[in-house]
Amino acid sequence: MTLPSRPNVDDSLVRIRSLLDKQELVRGLVHRTEMHHHEVVEDLVARQYQNELRRQINQLHPADIAHLLETLRTDERRVLWELIDSRYAGAVLLELSDPVRSSLIETLPAEKLVDAAERLDSDDIADLVPDLPAHVVQGLLQRLNHEDRTQVQSVLAFPENTVGALMDFDLAAVREDVSLDVVLRYLRRRGKLPEASDRLMVVDRDGLLRGTLGIEALVVHPGETRVAAVMEKDPVHFQTIDAAADAARAFERYDLIVAPVVNAHRQLVGCLKVDDMLDYLRESSHKDVLAQAGLSEDEDLFAPPWKAARGRWAWIALNLCTAFVASRIIGQFEGTIEQIVALAALMPIVASIGGNTGQQTLALMIQGMALKQVNSGNFRYLVSKEVGVALINGVLWGGVMGAITWALYGQLPLGVIMFAAMVLNLLLAALTGALVPMALRHIGQDPALGSSIILTGFTDSFGFMIFLGLAASFLGV
Amino acid sequence: MTLPSRPNVDDSLVRIRSLLDKQELVRGLVHRTEMHHHEVVEDLVARQYQNELRRQINQLHPADIAHLLETLRTDERRVLWELIDSRYAGAVLLELSDPVRSSLIETLPAEKLVDAAERLDSDDIADLVPDLPAHVVQGLLQRLNHEDRTQVQSVLAFPENTVGALMDFDLAAVREDVSLDVVLRYLRRRGKLPEASDRLMVVDRDGLLRGTLGIEALVVHPGETRVAAVMEKDPVHFQTIDAAADAARAFERYDLIVAPVVNAHRQLVGCLKVDDMLDYLRESSHKDVLAQAGLSEDEDLFAPPWKAARGRWAWIALNLCTAFVASRIIGQFEGTIEQIVALAALMPIVASIGGNTGQQTLALMIQGMALKQVNSGNFRYLVSKEVGVALINGVLWGGVMGAITWALYGQLPLGVIMFAAMVLNLLLAALTGALVPMALRHIGQDPALGSSIILTGFTDSFGFMIFLGLAASFLGV
Repeated sequence: MTLPSRPNVDDSLVRIRSLLDKQELVRGLVHRTEMHHHEVVEDLVARQYQNELRRQINQLHPADIAHLLETLRTDERRVLWELIDSRYAGAVLLELSDPVRSSLIETLPAEKLVDAAERLDSDDIADLVPDLPAHVVQGLLQRLNHEDRTQVQSVLAFPENTVGALMDFDLAAVREDVSLDVVLRYLRRRGKLPEASDRLMVVDRDGLLRGTLGIEALVVHPGETRVAAVMEKDPVHFQTIDAAADAARAFERYDLIVAPVVNAHRQLVGCLKVDDMLDYLRESSHKDVLAQAGLSEDEDLFAPPWKAARGRWAWIALNLCTAFVASRIIGQFEGTIEQIVALAALMPIVASIGGNTGQQTLALMIQGMALKQVNSGNFRYLVSKEVGVALINGVLWGGVMGAITWALYGQLPLGVIMFAAMVLNLLLAALTGALVPMALRHIGQDPALGSSIILTGFTDSFGFMIFLGLAASFLGV
Repeated sequence: MTLPSRPNVDDSLVRIRSLLDKQELVRGLVHRTEMHHHEVVEDLVARQYQNELRRQINQLHPADIAHLLETLRTDERRVLWELIDSRYAGAVLLELSDPVRSSLIETLPAEKLVDAAERLDSDDIADLVPDLPAHVVQGLLQRLNHEDRTQVQSVLAFPENTVGALMDFDLAAVREDVSLDVVLRYLRRRGKLPEASDRLMVVDRDGLLRGTLGIEALVVHPGETRVAAVMEKDPVHFQTIDAAADAARAFERYDLIVAPVVNAHRQLVGCLKVDDMLDYLRESSHKDVLAQAGLSEDEDLFAPPWKAARGRWAWIALNLCTAFVASRIIGQFEGTIEQIVALAALMPIVASIGGNTGQQTLALMIQGMALKQVNSGNFRYLVSKEVGVALINGVLWGGVMGAITWALYGQLPLGVIMFAAMVLNLLLAALTGALVPMALRHIGQDPALGSSIILTGFTDSFGFMIFLGLAASFLGV
């Protein structure tokens, strides 16, 4: 990848990091040596590094500055933030992930935040508002003109994950009864086209969506052509209340660049753009992966340990409960284990294979649900297929493990119990892996939420119960 | 979401599915009743459904047909495929995921494949080629004109996951020394603009990239303006050998719609478009999630159980090995367990919490690596942060669990051992979760590949070893 005027972003980042390191070193020295004659010199050195750092940073694209901030420790982030030119500060805030953004916002004075946010487009301001303190939001809204304020407020009115909350207002709308020459004159007067758009919106005098006009049409058709003659009359469009995930899938499937957004009366209220959809997709797949392991999307990779630890407590507590249940189940069979202590060594094999094969079913189901490939029509087939896979693998690998057990302990019945327990626990793992995400969705939760922890809770508990129960029944102990 | 002339795709899909169900029912009847007088009637009913089905399907967008195919069983897919109009067949193939595509291709005659592929653009043909049988590829290349054939072959020359393998040839290139009017005349003669593009490429007479010209410039500047005066002179561009993942990140970060691709001599050879990047991002995040659980990206959600089971054998076999090792470790402590059978009930708690908290570190690291947030400069900090989290959670929840153990078994030493084992295993889990993806990347593997299975192998084995080892040492048994 080659970027304009900054031949290699990665090199710049490495240089900035090493400058940060040096600066920290120098500041550390100043701090340690207290008030003596060296301090002045060291302070100068620190200033020199700081100026060099400032120069390097403000050459970067705001998205690159944001990326750099994401890869720094919390304390380094504050050092770097101070050096960012106030012209770029808003754009940088916008490109940050939620946890990093809110941790930075906490440390900034209200006036600076208003300054930074004010320079942004209204849809971008609306993105920032949920993270801003109430008094900053108020100060900010007062400074905006009427149109921008209305736009910000209209975006804020929609729930997260709807099209309304993601829409953009940078669009150009024309009438269908004018000629392309009129459109061209209008665009020339406007001075620029909406960013990242390959089409204009066509509306009637009541603002109702009539179609879209590709920029292409302006270029390849004669100027006297009417808009109505060359516009796309029935474009893919979205309602403000549509799910953002459905919109993202439509962008992917139909290769859209920009699409109109209408309200319940079919009035044009904004548009969706592919760059926002790209960010949305990345964020939601990121969220899914973390949710599966019981992490919140607000988990900041570089958060201080204490903060990160607290964010994980709820799921660890649940995990302790499931592990405790599994432990009590084993406790019921203490008499059996006392007589055949080999059972204690063998039972984790059943639990482990169950847990890991269940993870496979789980990962497939969550992905299939995210891609909308799983529906009520094929869910039964999917479950029966995963059960089939479990049966095949259970018979095969349970057979292998049963034979090893037999060979190792010289007791055929123990081998047979191992075999039967593995088949049964693999079947249970497949069912659990398929049903847990469905159940989570059914109760209105993210199908991935903590699913790994719930799954291993089942496969551990039942794995031990099946294996020890079979042993207790058939080994006559 | 509202689509042109087909108000609700989801409704259509439901209707088609129900038609498929009926058709299958009818076909089933025909099959069962052998040769008797009802057969003719049932055959007619079947035909009627088939015609209705064909009509409905061919109204859909190729991407929607592909989505429908993805949600069907293998046998249903073949029924549906037969009904797709040959004009759309190539486009549908292109939109399918790899495993579904190759399973369909296996069943199609060579002539049909050549027909379907021939209608596609050369970059799209290159996408299909790796899945096509050799004799089909040869037949196909012979039918293409010289330019298309050269383009297909040039794309095929690049390794998967490079920019070269993903590039597109649908672009318009102009010279910098002409006026915008000349460019407009050229575009009118061409009759259409490159699809999904907001800019033209600017090259010199040797084909060297000089810049890009936004379509916007054509619209808002006077016709006599020179291209050189309004073009972007130093646009973000890619080399054919750049990593596709880096390109995708650049599209995300800089909100690109289209970007030029050059060879080592800086000659323009193609372009990258945002719609291809969107598909690439979706596919690679999908692959990551599956890889973590030890599934291949070629795993077809609706594959027959036998095929699906075989695809998972390698990782189950590894899992059996790690579980066997854990079992042998417990086996070493059989004497200890025989004397204090409570240990058998308690040890899975240590293993389970270790496994699940390790998964959290693992998920964070894999995501951080995919987003390029983890690098050699901050890896040490990340590891120490995760170790810090583990220490806090270990002390806190290990303390809780130690107290419960003490209360339950009335033995303080057992509680202390529980506490110590949990702290140690959480530390080990954090280290393993952070180091496994790094190690996988270091040996040139996908950092996510089978990482869950490797991780639980460690946390189980060492969890048992730490807990039982402490018990054996300090309880004096």
